[in-house]
Amino acid sequence: MVTTAGFADGFMQANLLAVPQEYAFDFLLFAQRNPKACPIVGVLEAGQYSSELLAGGDIRTDIPGYRIFRDGELTDSVEDATESWTEDMVAFLIGCSFTFESALQENGITLAHIEQRRNVAMYRTNIATVPAGIFSGPLVVSMRPIPADQVADAVRITSRYPSVHGAPVHVGNPEAIGIEDLSRPDFGDAVDIPEGHIPVFWACGVTPQAEVMNSKPRLAITHQPGKMLVTDARDVDYQVS
Amino acid sequence: MVTTAGFADGFMQANLLAVPQEYAFDFLLFAQRNPKACPIVGVLEAGQYSSELLAGGDIRTDIPGYRIFRDGELTDSVEDATESWTEDMVAFLIGCSFTFESALQENGITLAHIEQRRNVAMYRTNIATVPAGIFSGPLVVSMRPIPADQVADAVRITSRYPSVHGAPVHVGNPEAIGIEDLSRPDFGDAVDIPEGHIPVFWACGVTPQAEVMNSKPRLAITHQPGKMLVTDARDVDYQVS
Repeated sequence: MVTTAGFADGFMQANLLAVPQEYAFDFLLFAQRNPKACPIVGVLEAGQYSSELLAGGDIRTDIPGYRIFRDGELTDSVEDATESWTEDMVAFLIGCSFTFESALQENGITLAHIEQRRNVAMYRTNIATVPAGIFSGPLVVSMRPIPADQVADAVRITSRYPSVHGAPVHVGNPEAIGIEDLSRPDFGDAVDIPEGHIPVFWACGVTPQAEVMNSKPRLAITHQPGKMLVTDARDVDYQVS
Repeated sequence: MVTTAGFADGFMQANLLAVPQEYAFDFLLFAQRNPKACPIVGVLEAGQYSSELLAGGDIRTDIPGYRIFRDGELTDSVEDATESWTEDMVAFLIGCSFTFESALQENGITLAHIEQRRNVAMYRTNIATVPAGIFSGPLVVSMRPIPADQVADAVRITSRYPSVHGAPVHVGNPEAIGIEDLSRPDFGDAVDIPEGHIPVFWACGVTPQAEVMNSKPRLAITHQPGKMLVTDARDVDYQVS
């Protein structure tokens, strides 16, 4: 499996960041100050491994792929995080743009990375997040090529999903946000931009991974980009009118 | 001064809860899980006494009245909190319904407590908040009598202010939410309900004080109900379209 995109259609997918309790306040404050990048959809307190978002599940094993970071370095990629998951880990579930992708497609907007069977392209930008405690670093964005005549629709549709990143942070002109080469993403896959399409950028739930690399907590466990937690919550419940 | 209602028209007012760092994650998580009662508009980290919300000010002295709680008991009411404010205190600023009162009045809705020159009436309800860490307890609501033909307007107007409690949690029928006698509020002043008016209830930023009494952190510093922090932010910036 490359990604969980398109899995369990209609169910919300989520990004994961788990850190030891000593960093939990700093990260929750970081999320509060950077709601477009880190919209919190659930928090598992220390010693809690399940919740209504993953009924009967276990956050340490339910995601198809995990990354283990020690002192900001990616030290391991595993399919079961139980061994690294200490009892004081607090897990943050963060809204994922896969939720609004269904809505875009239902409204007749074709998504190039899905057509090309690739993971979405993600980039570090030169936009700084608002720091909190130890956490600081760049905003990470996901990019989707959108036909020029549908950009306005894409903005309107995704703005109805504030808890899964909401409206784009930038439309066109990647250089202006520090992306030098669209064909070399920092996370995920390069996606070909079809003729007449504009690159549109949304705040991305991989941002916490960039902050972990920058801020170096002694331990952090995340999902592998593109391999998300598939939750038991419905996408439509995260739409506002 | 009875309250800060009507002070510095157009500037946002805020509730305060400050707790030692050891409780800060629990409270921020409580706020995240109870956004209508505790909409966070700013956080001052340990050792930080000012921010853009109180430019040049000092959170320990800028509020006209403070309450000091030790082990859940109200032990002191002071005009300067500096003496009790330890270096590890984290201060949470929480949106206040005074912000939407201006909008209600601008839309032709007369507010009885302002006419009667009283503090708004606030009540403990039988609605439980969603617990987080040590924090749990009842939802506290503020009540405003609204003419029956303007209730729909009041809902519509306040729903545009999600970061200052938003739409009412309950309209009419106080018994249903555990309020036995409207003339005996738990906080603030009793307000006479004019003929033809319906009591309308909004989630209230005094809720954290009820949770402190219930959950008994070793120290908590709050504003005195009705005596708010008058910030340097504009009310209109907290309105959504």
